[in-house]
Amino acid sequence: MWYSNSLTKMLSIKYPIIQAGMAGSTTPELVATVSNKGGLGCIGAGYFTADKLEQEIQKVRSMTVQPFGVNLFVPSHNNYTEAQVEHMNAWLKPYRKALDLEEPVVNITEEQQFNNAIEMVIKHKVPVCCFTFGLPSQEIISKLKQANVTLVGTATSVEEAIENERVGMDMVVAQGSEAGGHRGSFLAKNQQTQPLIGTMSLVPQVVEHLSIPIIAAGGIMNGRGILASLVLGAQGVQMGTAFLTTEESGANEVVKQGILNSKETDTRVTDVFSGKLARGINNEFAESLAKYDGEIPPYPVQNQLTNTIRKTAAAKGNSKWTHMWSGQSPRLAKRQQVTQLFDNLVSEVDALLQTIH
Amino acid sequence: MWYSNSLTKMLSIKYPIIQAGMAGSTTPELVATVSNKGGLGCIGAGYFTADKLEQEIQKVRSMTVQPFGVNLFVPSHNNYTEAQVEHMNAWLKPYRKALDLEEPVVNITEEQQFNNAIEMVIKHKVPVCCFTFGLPSQEIISKLKQANVTLVGTATSVEEAIENERVGMDMVVAQGSEAGGHRGSFLAKNQQTQPLIGTMSLVPQVVEHLSIPIIAAGGIMNGRGILASLVLGAQGVQMGTAFLTTEESGANEVVKQGILNSKETDTRVTDVFSGKLARGINNEFAESLAKYDGEIPPYPVQNQLTNTIRKTAAAKGNSKWTHMWSGQSPRLAKRQQVTQLFDNLVSEVDALLQTIH
Repeated sequence: MWYSNSLTKMLSIKYPIIQAGMAGSTTPELVATVSNKGGLGCIGAGYFTADKLEQEIQKVRSMTVQPFGVNLFVPSHNNYTEAQVEHMNAWLKPYRKALDLEEPVVNITEEQQFNNAIEMVIKHKVPVCCFTFGLPSQEIISKLKQANVTLVGTATSVEEAIENERVGMDMVVAQGSEAGGHRGSFLAKNQQTQPLIGTMSLVPQVVEHLSIPIIAAGGIMNGRGILASLVLGAQGVQMGTAFLTTEESGANEVVKQGILNSKETDTRVTDVFSGKLARGINNEFAESLAKYDGEIPPYPVQNQLTNTIRKTAAAKGNSKWTHMWSGQSPRLAKRQQVTQLFDNLVSEVDALLQTIH
Repeated sequence: MWYSNSLTKMLSIKYPIIQAGMAGSTTPELVATVSNKGGLGCIGAGYFTADKLEQEIQKVRSMTVQPFGVNLFVPSHNNYTEAQVEHMNAWLKPYRKALDLEEPVVNITEEQQFNNAIEMVIKHKVPVCCFTFGLPSQEIISKLKQANVTLVGTATSVEEAIENERVGMDMVVAQGSEAGGHRGSFLAKNQQTQPLIGTMSLVPQVVEHLSIPIIAAGGIMNGRGILASLVLGAQGVQMGTAFLTTEESGANEVVKQGILNSKETDTRVTDVFSGKLARGINNEFAESLAKYDGEIPPYPVQNQLTNTIRKTAAAKGNSKWTHMWSGQSPRLAKRQQVTQLFDNLVSEVDALLQTIH
């Protein structure tokens, strides 16, 4: 069967369909349902404190006995200056004023937060840990391997994929340029030179250079995308946007509607929301900040500076000032329950296999 | 069989593999060999005079009885000013001096050249005519249809694909962002907003909106890419880079070596070579002109201004000052004969079908 391969064996799942760790938008219901259907649900824990992560793990566990994963942001250790922050705060003032918000205090805790999350993954015997934005230290990798955690890395180029295999990742996501949300790039010297390689190009080139299983990501929304990825040499797929518009997703209604009403030409890759490049539906905030007369502070600084603006705007139904992460296939997004989406994916692949010979 | 569908029937070919109309780089040997192998060879006639096109058609016909195509640039009618030309000429002076070249005289004949080419296609009963950069007039479309020419358009978005179907194209190439060479975009207001949609996203979204056959393009280099495209809903593929490095291709040796020695992260999309966006291997000329302190003159003006520089540089083995069109999969390019490439493509698809069930 198309779904039986070394990836599904290693992850102890039935179907090689991984729900992307959409930080801030996963719910225990979403994660558990994906896992119960035979895929791999993932807690998007990039922004979580250890306490919040522990609660989410416990909730997911109460809803499924199947394997699931935790998706973490590897700390980026970016340099920034107070002047950068002040300049951005001045620029953001009108938004804060309009929404009646205080200026936030930048507080960089990513290293500690990451280490605490790793402890939580081990403590609760979470079977799978996924990483983006880079690679964890050898010490952390060893610790997780001793705890029998399966490690999944992210790459946006062949070189990054090779690096993932070299440090000991068990499998790697090849993230094509179509993908929504944050880019997982970590080897480029600067954001201008970050790779934006289409999935159709990236996957077969990565496959030729690695021996660990490859997971295709970027533009995959239906059975066609899943089977095409397997044909390209991937052993599984990671899907974000398709899950983001489901009933169970934690994304704000504004975001779901933003995606459902968009075309393939409506997205852009920008760092103005978080300080790291990410693909989302273009809107007024992105357009306006594209004209910013300075350097956008790096992640997580910019993320913290814009955070309350984006959340408050979304809560008020304002789609112009919030991020709406989406890949390049929003026309294929549907508002439906996760079980419906998942059943469709599997039956679409089955049906396609009947027509191709 | 995987290769038997309405596209192969309409084109009277065995395999749904179309050699892209790489203007300036096709040879009668390349075109005829592709057609003799059961694909569709195409004369890249974008820069040809009517006389040159006639010669090429006659040569191809002397080498094959199989169907082949002619690929044409639809006139773009771009506005430009003398000041733009002067400013660019000043910038290009050091290149011309180093290569001992005269300043060229801009001579816009695209409309006449295009009309003459259409007459030539009809006169010689060329079975297929492919278009890029836009859509021909209804008058030309009717004339070609009366002459039983099958019409193939190019689209880089769903909207452009719908427009192709509306005006009467018989099939349409969905050109993903991975594709090498010129972008076929024609609906964007300016180059900054031209669509760069990955093939994995573009093809399934186009397929849902059209009833004519779709040809996938962008990043397709081997059997994996061909079968994946069919799975995505395309009925055929168009491949450029894979054919560009074959022995029979007319590309300069410098270009072939440039592609063969590049990685997926080495290409960029730029308008500095021709005035229209195109993807190629990044080099000194592209880097330098990216810092140009003015507006790049539109196609075909910039193309004429840089033409002798690029050709002379290539002839001297200088890869820094010539264009090296390539898609995002140069790691999969091989130096081989067309028959070898074609046999491999077919047997790779056959083999993949054995493994997938």
